[in-house]
Amino acid sequence: MTPMKHALLEKIASPADLRRLSRAELKQLAVELRDFIVQSVAQTGGHLSSNLGTVELTIALHTVFNTPHDRLVWDVGHQTYPHKVLTGRRTRMPTLRQLGGISGFPRREESEYDTFGTAHSSTSISAALGMAVGARQKGEPRKAVAIIGDGAMTAGMAFEALNNAGVSQADMLVVLNDNDMSISPPVGALNRHLARLMSGKFYAAARDTAKTVLKNAPPLFELARRLEEHAKGMVVPGTIFEEFGFNYVGPIDGHDLDSLIPTLENLRAMRGPQFLHVVTKKGYGYKLAEADPVLYHGPGKFNPAEGLVAPKTPPKVTFTQVFGEWLCDMAAKDERLVGITPAMREGSGLVEFERRFPRRYHDVGIAEQHAVTFAAGLACEGLKPVVAIYSTFLQRAYDQLIHDVAIQNLPVVFALDRGGLVGADGPTHAGAYDLAFLRCIPNVAVLAPADENETRQALYTAFMHDGPAAVRYPRGSGVGVAVSAEMTAIPFGTGERRREIARPAGQGGPRIAILAFGTLLYPALAAADKLDATVANMRFVKPLDTALVAELARTHDALVTIEEGCVMGGAGSAVLEALAAAGIEIPVLTLGIPDVFVEHGDPARLLAQIGLDAAGIEQSIRRRFGVPAAPVLVRSAAGP
Amino acid sequence: MTPMKHALLEKIASPADLRRLSRAELKQLAVELRDFIVQSVAQTGGHLSSNLGTVELTIALHTVFNTPHDRLVWDVGHQTYPHKVLTGRRTRMPTLRQLGGISGFPRREESEYDTFGTAHSSTSISAALGMAVGARQKGEPRKAVAIIGDGAMTAGMAFEALNNAGVSQADMLVVLNDNDMSISPPVGALNRHLARLMSGKFYAAARDTAKTVLKNAPPLFELARRLEEHAKGMVVPGTIFEEFGFNYVGPIDGHDLDSLIPTLENLRAMRGPQFLHVVTKKGYGYKLAEADPVLYHGPGKFNPAEGLVAPKTPPKVTFTQVFGEWLCDMAAKDERLVGITPAMREGSGLVEFERRFPRRYHDVGIAEQHAVTFAAGLACEGLKPVVAIYSTFLQRAYDQLIHDVAIQNLPVVFALDRGGLVGADGPTHAGAYDLAFLRCIPNVAVLAPADENETRQALYTAFMHDGPAAVRYPRGSGVGVAVSAEMTAIPFGTGERRREIARPAGQGGPRIAILAFGTLLYPALAAADKLDATVANMRFVKPLDTALVAELARTHDALVTIEEGCVMGGAGSAVLEALAAAGIEIPVLTLGIPDVFVEHGDPARLLAQIGLDAAGIEQSIRRRFGVPAAPVLVRSAAGP
Repeated sequence: MTPMKHALLEKIASPADLRRLSRAELKQLAVELRDFIVQSVAQTGGHLSSNLGTVELTIALHTVFNTPHDRLVWDVGHQTYPHKVLTGRRTRMPTLRQLGGISGFPRREESEYDTFGTAHSSTSISAALGMAVGARQKGEPRKAVAIIGDGAMTAGMAFEALNNAGVSQADMLVVLNDNDMSISPPVGALNRHLARLMSGKFYAAARDTAKTVLKNAPPLFELARRLEEHAKGMVVPGTIFEEFGFNYVGPIDGHDLDSLIPTLENLRAMRGPQFLHVVTKKGYGYKLAEADPVLYHGPGKFNPAEGLVAPKTPPKVTFTQVFGEWLCDMAAKDERLVGITPAMREGSGLVEFERRFPRRYHDVGIAEQHAVTFAAGLACEGLKPVVAIYSTFLQRAYDQLIHDVAIQNLPVVFALDRGGLVGADGPTHAGAYDLAFLRCIPNVAVLAPADENETRQALYTAFMHDGPAAVRYPRGSGVGVAVSAEMTAIPFGTGERRREIARPAGQGGPRIAILAFGTLLYPALAAADKLDATVANMRFVKPLDTALVAELARTHDALVTIEEGCVMGGAGSAVLEALAAAGIEIPVLTLGIPDVFVEHGDPARLLAQIGLDAAGIEQSIRRRFGVPAAPVLVRSAAGP
Repeated sequence: MTPMKHALLEKIASPADLRRLSRAELKQLAVELRDFIVQSVAQTGGHLSSNLGTVELTIALHTVFNTPHDRLVWDVGHQTYPHKVLTGRRTRMPTLRQLGGISGFPRREESEYDTFGTAHSSTSISAALGMAVGARQKGEPRKAVAIIGDGAMTAGMAFEALNNAGVSQADMLVVLNDNDMSISPPVGALNRHLARLMSGKFYAAARDTAKTVLKNAPPLFELARRLEEHAKGMVVPGTIFEEFGFNYVGPIDGHDLDSLIPTLENLRAMRGPQFLHVVTKKGYGYKLAEADPVLYHGPGKFNPAEGLVAPKTPPKVTFTQVFGEWLCDMAAKDERLVGITPAMREGSGLVEFERRFPRRYHDVGIAEQHAVTFAAGLACEGLKPVVAIYSTFLQRAYDQLIHDVAIQNLPVVFALDRGGLVGADGPTHAGAYDLAFLRCIPNVAVLAPADENETRQALYTAFMHDGPAAVRYPRGSGVGVAVSAEMTAIPFGTGERRREIARPAGQGGPRIAILAFGTLLYPALAAADKLDATVANMRFVKPLDTALVAELARTHDALVTIEEGCVMGGAGSAVLEALAAAGIEIPVLTLGIPDVFVEHGDPARLLAQIGLDAAGIEQSIRRRFGVPAAPVLVRSAAGP
């Protein structure tokens, strides 16, 4: 693929400009826009396949609907690059997902065209229904459109919204962008239903018609075609969406503007809940992405001409990989182990597990609530489920965790990936609250390992524990501690001292002990080398090693807690509670994520920005306790 | 209705005894069991309508399935009294929902027949699927049955499970107990779909057939009938459940053992996911409950012969009523107000609001996730949504609260009913974690008013606030503070001093300040009268009045925090954080709900048990700080 000029695209300052273009020009625009997306993502990294799939749909929606007066709500939102480019953000695309740059998702504060911030799936129908009902209440003739993928449609929330919308008589349109693929290949009965609709004779006929007879049709043919489009809802029998009270139209070819635009025009004129089923192809128009849409789902930077190439030096082992390997090793040892993912096979590191243990692997779809209760059901039968889930997605299954796992005290392991900040995906994907929202629930153990090997051992410890346990680790790689093949349980509820203060009492300022939870142990050790402080690797947020806390308090002048999680209610707060309960008064500095939503950007820079790198930790401690710059007396102990 | 003998029922020690009875005896048993339930609930209070609806279904399931080897999972579980009676707990029914007695819901630790603890709706299919998949993995020929109501079917989680089960090929049966009624009358498109199925000619014909021709049918007819039953799935066209990959059978009469037992026998013999649609009537067999199933959903004690009678003295105003009245008053003042409930119109106090403002009232079904995002959508259009939701049910919409409301900083008010312990419903309904899981989320204000009038003013304050705000109040009535018609905003983020310590420093032991969050202010004041302590009504958990905290710390020797919420991560923990951040060292005692699931029972006794009544508070403070018994010097100020 060679770069092209984007002459037409560069003239589009806002969607109003689209509405002045001829159909032929819109088609040319689609070609340029697709090329622009490839070039742009190749430079910044980001989501690719999904955005190539929505080029024509985006053009058609902004052409037909009177945006921003009419509301477009993009489900998940990682497919909104064409939308961003067409709504005045073309020149800002090089800043995508970078600190201070535009977001990879819709954001209300970024543009009036971004009507609703999304990032987790399946919220769009609810939000668009709220907008449609709101417009009705205010007497404003406004349309609301939700654009949702077939994967997102498997989440229960989408059904809750369909169920409510179907009887609301609100003027809203749901566009099902059916690409037979969310991130992982699709699962579940709904997908089978969609496939049946698509494989029907009618779709084939309609597609042929659109492709041959009706191209550049004169007005009379156009009218006939519109009637035909409208009739489709009647012809395809008993779709699930009609059962919900929607007027179902489709499936139509989502890359064909000659199908999309007249159909959307029809639907725009109709009252009540409308449903349009559009078929698109992820990665459409960029051969490499079409061939492997999963690989090109969210690539880093690449050369568009040659595509993604394997890096010359093998990348560092990620925590996700450590989990994936542990899961396979543990499954080989214990046949009771079952692995569960809510549609995140790749992201959660389960590819190899599925290959080796297909009967014990369950991708339940984008269905976190079900995933957790399903795991509880398995645990009732004596199996040992491991739910592999991003920290942020566990927020979707909080009640199920409390009721079905914690109250019943069932041995379910939660492998919480993406704990802490995640970088480019921003606040919606950050796992900032898990330590706080988990530790308040009785019976739930919460482990925060500090490095790769400790993650493996913590997972083993959680698995051997006869009760609910969450092991929380961050996105990306750690400091590079070699992972031992052996599995050894960490003594339950204990931390360990990793560095001892060297200077005697009364010399060189207050004696500080740092209590680190999770991977920030390493910057804490680096800061401690500068300050000459004691450092403990706490390992457990719950049960907290209260004996160690008391011991450190007794032998130091001040404590510092550190975690890559919210300060409010987090692990540091647990330390404060332990001290208060023990009647110990000592100054404590709690470091962690402050009470704001931290924006997207490079993870290391973000951590530095909120003072959670080694320099920031050192500085915060000096500022609070006035520790003078001391000569380095003892280096920290090496990792295990 | 006159009490009867339960001669047959008294011989049933376990379901095995059912399997020895003739069909005629089973019918007699149903009559006795129904009578027993009415007599029993009349004495203890509890759920009535739903249990009268499941008498025959319970008998049929335990007769046909080999329980407890086969697994019955009852959705919600408040309809399991017949199940409890038949599984060895008949003589314990007088202890129902009382301290130390049996639970009103299934509990795994209570009986091996209670395979899965339930209480929130829509978990049963997920759990039963887990059990079915577990049995398959272990090679055990075991059946799993989920029994779920039509109301519970509107929750997205049920669809997630159907979607997963439909392709699993697991041997499981879903029994849809369709009584056209959850607690409130039904809403949504699914309900309309079910009504259409029931109104179909086929159902009428099948019902007639079962009632006339096939009664006591000889074996050949029986076979014909079985085939007919089996054929139903083919005859009723395109049910939504077939689209999900289930073999759909029904609808059949759920009060007719001659329909239920053969149909269940057929289904038990079939492989793969089966779906039985059963039609029952809430309150069946007790005329008063049939006539008003909502009134008899969860009655207190009553005389079965005369039914529920209005109490002679008007009951005390509940917090729910205070909310309901405020909502109407506020709606009259501000046309932007919209009221939203996830299927809890009665429980949340919205009956009058719906009557007066039908166009601004939205019952979205049992769909907490959708409810919150729908509210966010409304807020985007400039409306002011108030989501009326029990604290425990907000756990179902945690991610939506974080993403769709908090990150976007939208002005949505959460009216959190049932904060704290709830009594007879037990740990699943307690609102114990809300303060902890809400205060860690940026942008969310959390108010905990202390009495009836302050609840009204707090709701007004939250409504006037331009951002997300939760107002949390308990189940039942308060101390009886008169509610002012006026609405006055509480200065945002401020507490108030309600009682001042009288004795001078240095006399009579340490000077204590109690910081109370919410309705425990009143027992705290009573304890303070005994101890001569200062008391502050903090009002806001977030933003916390840190100036007041610092001031109280500066002028006292020790602080005590008190809240009807979990100690871990709760409001007391927020006070500890504020003190640590300000560099203040002072002994702090944090009182609240300990880190266990508190069982069901009388709320006042439960509070006393965990030391949160006036005597318990006094005792805890004396024990910790050694405050000597002091003469009462000053009475606490009266309520506002």
